[in-house]
Amino acid sequence: MPTETKRKVATKPKTAASPKKKVKYIYDFGKKTDGKAALRNLLGGKGANLAEMACIGLPVPPGFTITTEVCTYFYDNKKSYPNSLASDTEKSVARVEKQMGKKFGDPNNPLLFSVRSGARESMPGMMDTILNLGLNDKTVVGLAKLTGNPRFAYDCYRRFIQMYGDVVMGVHSRNENERDPFENIIEKLKGRKSIEHDFDLSADDLIELIKSFQQLIKKRTEKKFPQDVYAQLWGAVGAVFGSWRNDRAMVYRQKYNIPVEWGTAVNVQSMVFGNMGKTSSTGVAFTRDPANGEKIFYGEYLINAQGEDVVAGIRTPKPIVQLKKEMPKAYAELEKVRKTLEKHFKDMQDFEFTVEEGKLYMLQTRNGKRTGLAAVRIAVEMVRERLIKITTAINKIPADSISSLLVPVFDIQSRKKAMLMATGLPAGPGAASGRIVFTAGVAEELERQGVKVILCRVETTPEDLRGMIASEGILTSRGGVSSHAALVARQMGKVCVCGAHEIVIDYEKRMLKAGGNVLREGDAISIDGTTGEVFSGHLDTAPSEVNQVLAGNLKPRNSYTYQLFAKVMAWADKYRQLKVRTNADTPAQAKMAVALGAQGIGLCRTEHMFFEGERITFMRKMILASNKIERRAALKKLLPFQRKDFIGLFKVMEGRPVTIRLLDPPLHEFLPMEAASRNALGKELNVSPKVIADRVKSLHEQNPMLGHRGCRLGVSYPEITEMQARAIFEAAAQVVKSKKPVPVAPEIMVPLIGYARELKNQVAIIHRIAKEVMKQKKVKFHYLVGTMIEIPRAALMAHEIAETAEFFSYGTNDLTQTTLGMSRDDSGSFLPEYKDLEIISQNPFATIDQDGVGQLVETASVNGRKARKGIKLGICGEHGGDPDSVKFFHTIGLDYVSCSPPRVPVARLAAAQAKLND
Amino acid sequence: MPTETKRKVATKPKTAASPKKKVKYIYDFGKKTDGKAALRNLLGGKGANLAEMACIGLPVPPGFTITTEVCTYFYDNKKSYPNSLASDTEKSVARVEKQMGKKFGDPNNPLLFSVRSGARESMPGMMDTILNLGLNDKTVVGLAKLTGNPRFAYDCYRRFIQMYGDVVMGVHSRNENERDPFENIIEKLKGRKSIEHDFDLSADDLIELIKSFQQLIKKRTEKKFPQDVYAQLWGAVGAVFGSWRNDRAMVYRQKYNIPVEWGTAVNVQSMVFGNMGKTSSTGVAFTRDPANGEKIFYGEYLINAQGEDVVAGIRTPKPIVQLKKEMPKAYAELEKVRKTLEKHFKDMQDFEFTVEEGKLYMLQTRNGKRTGLAAVRIAVEMVRERLIKITTAINKIPADSISSLLVPVFDIQSRKKAMLMATGLPAGPGAASGRIVFTAGVAEELERQGVKVILCRVETTPEDLRGMIASEGILTSRGGVSSHAALVARQMGKVCVCGAHEIVIDYEKRMLKAGGNVLREGDAISIDGTTGEVFSGHLDTAPSEVNQVLAGNLKPRNSYTYQLFAKVMAWADKYRQLKVRTNADTPAQAKMAVALGAQGIGLCRTEHMFFEGERITFMRKMILASNKIERRAALKKLLPFQRKDFIGLFKVMEGRPVTIRLLDPPLHEFLPMEAASRNALGKELNVSPKVIADRVKSLHEQNPMLGHRGCRLGVSYPEITEMQARAIFEAAAQVVKSKKPVPVAPEIMVPLIGYARELKNQVAIIHRIAKEVMKQKKVKFHYLVGTMIEIPRAALMAHEIAETAEFFSYGTNDLTQTTLGMSRDDSGSFLPEYKDLEIISQNPFATIDQDGVGQLVETASVNGRKARKGIKLGICGEHGGDPDSVKFFHTIGLDYVSCSPPRVPVARLAAAQAKLND
Repeated sequence: MPTETKRKVATKPKTAASPKKKVKYIYDFGKKTDGKAALRNLLGGKGANLAEMACIGLPVPPGFTITTEVCTYFYDNKKSYPNSLASDTEKSVARVEKQMGKKFGDPNNPLLFSVRSGARESMPGMMDTILNLGLNDKTVVGLAKLTGNPRFAYDCYRRFIQMYGDVVMGVHSRNENERDPFENIIEKLKGRKSIEHDFDLSADDLIELIKSFQQLIKKRTEKKFPQDVYAQLWGAVGAVFGSWRNDRAMVYRQKYNIPVEWGTAVNVQSMVFGNMGKTSSTGVAFTRDPANGEKIFYGEYLINAQGEDVVAGIRTPKPIVQLKKEMPKAYAELEKVRKTLEKHFKDMQDFEFTVEEGKLYMLQTRNGKRTGLAAVRIAVEMVRERLIKITTAINKIPADSISSLLVPVFDIQSRKKAMLMATGLPAGPGAASGRIVFTAGVAEELERQGVKVILCRVETTPEDLRGMIASEGILTSRGGVSSHAALVARQMGKVCVCGAHEIVIDYEKRMLKAGGNVLREGDAISIDGTTGEVFSGHLDTAPSEVNQVLAGNLKPRNSYTYQLFAKVMAWADKYRQLKVRTNADTPAQAKMAVALGAQGIGLCRTEHMFFEGERITFMRKMILASNKIERRAALKKLLPFQRKDFIGLFKVMEGRPVTIRLLDPPLHEFLPMEAASRNALGKELNVSPKVIADRVKSLHEQNPMLGHRGCRLGVSYPEITEMQARAIFEAAAQVVKSKKPVPVAPEIMVPLIGYARELKNQVAIIHRIAKEVMKQKKVKFHYLVGTMIEIPRAALMAHEIAETAEFFSYGTNDLTQTTLGMSRDDSGSFLPEYKDLEIISQNPFATIDQDGVGQLVETASVNGRKARKGIKLGICGEHGGDPDSVKFFHTIGLDYVSCSPPRVPVARLAAAQAKLND
Repeated sequence: MPTETKRKVATKPKTAASPKKKVKYIYDFGKKTDGKAALRNLLGGKGANLAEMACIGLPVPPGFTITTEVCTYFYDNKKSYPNSLASDTEKSVARVEKQMGKKFGDPNNPLLFSVRSGARESMPGMMDTILNLGLNDKTVVGLAKLTGNPRFAYDCYRRFIQMYGDVVMGVHSRNENERDPFENIIEKLKGRKSIEHDFDLSADDLIELIKSFQQLIKKRTEKKFPQDVYAQLWGAVGAVFGSWRNDRAMVYRQKYNIPVEWGTAVNVQSMVFGNMGKTSSTGVAFTRDPANGEKIFYGEYLINAQGEDVVAGIRTPKPIVQLKKEMPKAYAELEKVRKTLEKHFKDMQDFEFTVEEGKLYMLQTRNGKRTGLAAVRIAVEMVRERLIKITTAINKIPADSISSLLVPVFDIQSRKKAMLMATGLPAGPGAASGRIVFTAGVAEELERQGVKVILCRVETTPEDLRGMIASEGILTSRGGVSSHAALVARQMGKVCVCGAHEIVIDYEKRMLKAGGNVLREGDAISIDGTTGEVFSGHLDTAPSEVNQVLAGNLKPRNSYTYQLFAKVMAWADKYRQLKVRTNADTPAQAKMAVALGAQGIGLCRTEHMFFEGERITFMRKMILASNKIERRAALKKLLPFQRKDFIGLFKVMEGRPVTIRLLDPPLHEFLPMEAASRNALGKELNVSPKVIADRVKSLHEQNPMLGHRGCRLGVSYPEITEMQARAIFEAAAQVVKSKKPVPVAPEIMVPLIGYARELKNQVAIIHRIAKEVMKQKKVKFHYLVGTMIEIPRAALMAHEIAETAEFFSYGTNDLTQTTLGMSRDDSGSFLPEYKDLEIISQNPFATIDQDGVGQLVETASVNGRKARKGIKLGICGEHGGDPDSVKFFHTIGLDYVSCSPPRVPVARLAAAQAKLND
């Protein structure tokens, strides 16, 4: 933190050797505007949009932006600044002084600034803001005289010291239950004077507070609150830059994969005041509803307040529609601004405004964060309104958000029986049940133990972020739609109900009340973020409307959500090139996946078929067989089951390709681990428990992930491959020849190939069995034989393997484990720390490691295609449902991705986006 | 086996569509010779050398060679032959007929052939041989008339039927204890007639045997013994080709890494007879002693015998020197041939000869197999004799064989006390103790259980091969230096004593006797293959002479072995480019390695230092620490130990580079696994056993190989890296500043890097500590920081990692595990089968997988050098001591290999060979 160096810099920032060429570090906005929206990377989102608003004639108070390059410079040069920065700043200050007719630090006519951070991507609540900068013991007197409003002037100063003391000088509560020390002083004074509201404090009260605040700062930091206005400015700028790497910012960036290199800009803007009395106000608004996307003017404001009062949730703001009555002129102007903004920015906007003595000022605009549902609805409706093109709309919907249309809702029956406790603002759609927790720490702790929790807070602050991430849903009793909780929930897709006023939360007693109802920490609670309802106890869930329509239980015309879904999917399918398959093992899964748009099965794991009922017994007999004859006998019993499974899949898939992976896991996974179960098994199979124990022991492996599994089993026990091939081909024959014949397209996949000869060995068996079955059943059908590429050697030798393989399916789960030398099951002990330390930016098991694993996939694809023209290339790891990964797979030219059924729509949309961004 | 198709081919081979261009499939030798030694790949070793001998005027009976390309064709075309082969064969037969003045199949003047296999590399005992081919019920009468020796003619026919029946028609003993069915008939007849020796059988006896043999074949195979001589010829040719892929040949090829693609040639040669009476003989000889390399004429012969009698070991042959008395003229000629051969082939030759009625014929010559010791001695002495150049000599010594000069010998004291049971021929140098086993099967079984065995046989046959491989040493009671046992032992470097006649082996009672001494299966026995001595019981071993000299316990001039070693090493060092380091953890190991030529330490595993005495207690305290403070306290206790270790190493290495790897294994490896030890530990550390059990549980991993280890530990617990870095630098400071200052060159190696940022994280700590220590101790020293490249991602991202790493050391053990997705510990369950099925040719953990792992190493080296000019590249996996791997590492331009101390000389020699073969 720069606090320590602040006193040294005094009126000039610390500088280091200047770079060779003169770089423009400061961009003005106001009458003279240097920037524009397109300079977002340099000016940050806020700075770029302030410039853009100034350009299109919206009323923006003048100011200037210090670029993100200065932030980079700051961290690269031991927290110092470029040489020219100080003088350039003074020049820009002078230009603002000229426009405003005031002077920075002038005791008689002081110019005041706000100082705000502004990164390339908006990071709500993460960065720090200072208002009223430029006030000191002298200028405050001038301001009082100038405005004729000493109370206002001292209130501004009090606020400034409070913010500056907190943000720049580090004076704040020392733990999450301690009260803010400045607020503490205010509360004490109010108590002493029996004052209820802050605005009832007199000018003298405020002067007293100012003194107390300055003393507090001196006591806590052993430094004086700075009276030099430039010292104030550089302190604030340093704090903004410093906050770029504070813990909260780190956590936020990790969650949203924002690179630390981007840096933040600093916006220095002349102050306007929403707290100049009853003709002044301040507010935030959205051009549409950010929770459900409805086209309504949506927002809230406070009369006689400064911006942070709205967001902080201390006073509950009023809905924007009320402004129409309170300030009709300003409201009309705002409605115009709302339209101008959407027309200009072609997107839903989230903006801040201030009305100073009746005059409207725009302080910020940005693309509004929205829920997945809102993202879809806004995109679809903006196309309908001819505001944007379809291709733009596709790109505006984060691919992941389509899945929020598929999340379960509360079951109607369950809901009927449930007890409604309260209703708040529906701030994050969806249904969530969980145990009540009151602090972020407990939320994190329980989440680690696998307990689902609902974080219940009076209001949330950035300190709660980790806890919010760990929770199923968030409930607050205070704060509106632009409160921290609502903002964050919106962005993270968390279920959230805000400002449920009926609920009283008592942190100390660890309980919450609503009416006569009392719930304690650990009790179950359920929240519906689509309706804002809060229920006591656990509620069951039901499939989403989309799923209900797809299952035929709801008519499309009765579900607007479904209509939105269908529209977006139709668009996606029109543009995408990458095919989307699904990973499915049962006809039911396959059926749902096809309804969600799957064009085939990319991975059917045959081992999942061995666990049900009798099957596991035969499987175990097979494993315990002491010779090939016994093993064949057990396999013979398994054959009809497997055949039946495949018949079911082939019928459902109606000629779409069905990729069937041969037995993959190590055999020990099929044997019982507990002594008791082993004894039972012994009795059942008429085998001594010792034999079973011995076999378990002999099958034990140090690193089962790298052991006797995959094709290695098929090589050791060719009779297993024979049985599986026979089951597949006999099923195909039966389906093709049945009374209602259905075409089939089996693609047999040999797992864990490392050597071309392994594949040749297995392929020879498969072809032999195919020939036998076709001859026996007097039928012909087409099939492919290919392999999973899931260990690095296979990728490296793709040119050789492609001579035998008719397709490659990248098993990126295992390929990630082997390429990174990192066991997915075990990486939990260090991967979180790797993210904290920014060694990795994304969990490589969630989003493909493009540099390493991706390099192998790309090289193997190029070499595979060289060796076999038209070889089919797909991927069937979990990355197949991750938008970033899907885009990568499109870029390197795979034919398809395969993912779990609920991710199919996400993959379809991501594939379309990838194609559009080619 | 071609037996089934034989009857169909009749007088012409089965043919397939002819290839487009006319290929020469047959090469004659004799008066007209088409081949030469250089055509080894095409004609096989035997065929090429027969041609070469014919060219340089040695007396070779005429014949022709069917090329290895026909073998390839045979397997590629369902065991059929090229179109032209039949007519070309007839033409070549006609040419031989002309030279010999005889006709193939002529009842009056029959030409007889031997048919022998001949692969590129000699494969003794693997392939099958047929002699006297062309005899049938009619031609035998002609031969009898022509030679005036009916007994001889019928004996030839009897032998032919016996061999043909066995090798071509598959009539042989059905298990290893059953007698050969043909020998059985002979023995019965001899019993009935009270005849002791085969040569006492009369012509009529032999006619009776011929009938019985033909009946036996008819009964066993339901086929008649063929009377048509071309049918005989094609049957024999098919059998030779067929035997290329029989089990024994497979096993042999695996052991010696001979590719199955090479194929074998077939040599058809006119017969000469060593069994034409007392003026005839046959023998095998070496131009030098193949066991110890001494320059003596070495071999053995039998009067009135055919070649196979010598090798088979049924009659004990006489040493070659006796031939001087029995056939002085032939002996003198042989001595001349011996010199001619060495002069021409520039290598020790192993040749076969026959004297037919006083006339010498050469039937084969080849480079003689030899023991490691002999290889070294012959190469050194041939240089001294100016027969070959040093560079040739270097290439003539298999790099592995240098290690046979370093194998232990029997301890003098132990030997003095031991009981000498018998003395045989010293056929494979070295000392071996083990349990007695009598069959190959038991040998294999016990070897799997980790029991050391000595295989004791009357004589060995190719069926014993797997058992011989599984044994520590081989002892036979019959057979000479060219017996199967001797040949194989020589080639495999097995300790072997042959023909220890005093020993009587009783397979049924499973015991052996010598004098009054009786040992049973399972009893200990010891054999000295350098002296031929056999001892009862177990003998202790002592270091080799070379090690004794290096340790200063023996004077160089008293050890010829040491002199040979030193000479070869001096040559190697002159030519090699690759540096050789050693993997050593203690000063003692390091000292021995330096004596053996190590130029630095390539891998010091610091974790090995944590197991001794008190250290493990502090290590465990560190692991059980519940916070950083406790952990630091435990680490502080470990620091002095580590420092002391490094001081020791630095002193011994005297400024040579010392690569120190930071802590690598997962922490659970340091905690006790048994409940009892945990309780003891609990008491010792004053920690409840539950805490220990919990920690063990929390450290448990599914796949520890891919878990929390390597640099991941250092990232999670930076204090471990700090402590290790401090210990290294403080040690360096102390050594540099001591009274007798010694230069130091520490190279700190961070293990298991996957991401460049992991390395940056660790390197920052190391540099910081280095700075601190240098400042504290007021000293400067140079050090490097680099990384192990041991997971594929690191290899793939080498360009990025090289920005931080000052050296790469390829950890090819782990790199092999991850690249192949194959756990070394677990691969035992399927790798042997992979070799059997020829999916892999070499164990990838012994010899580097060039295609896969090698590709990564090569790419990483190229990219690493691009990113950092002059980056030091080495390898420290076990492959560093494997000659084939060393050659590969030279080829791709690494700077050094590092291997265990005893492999250092092997690596030095292999490196020189690699350079010479550039």
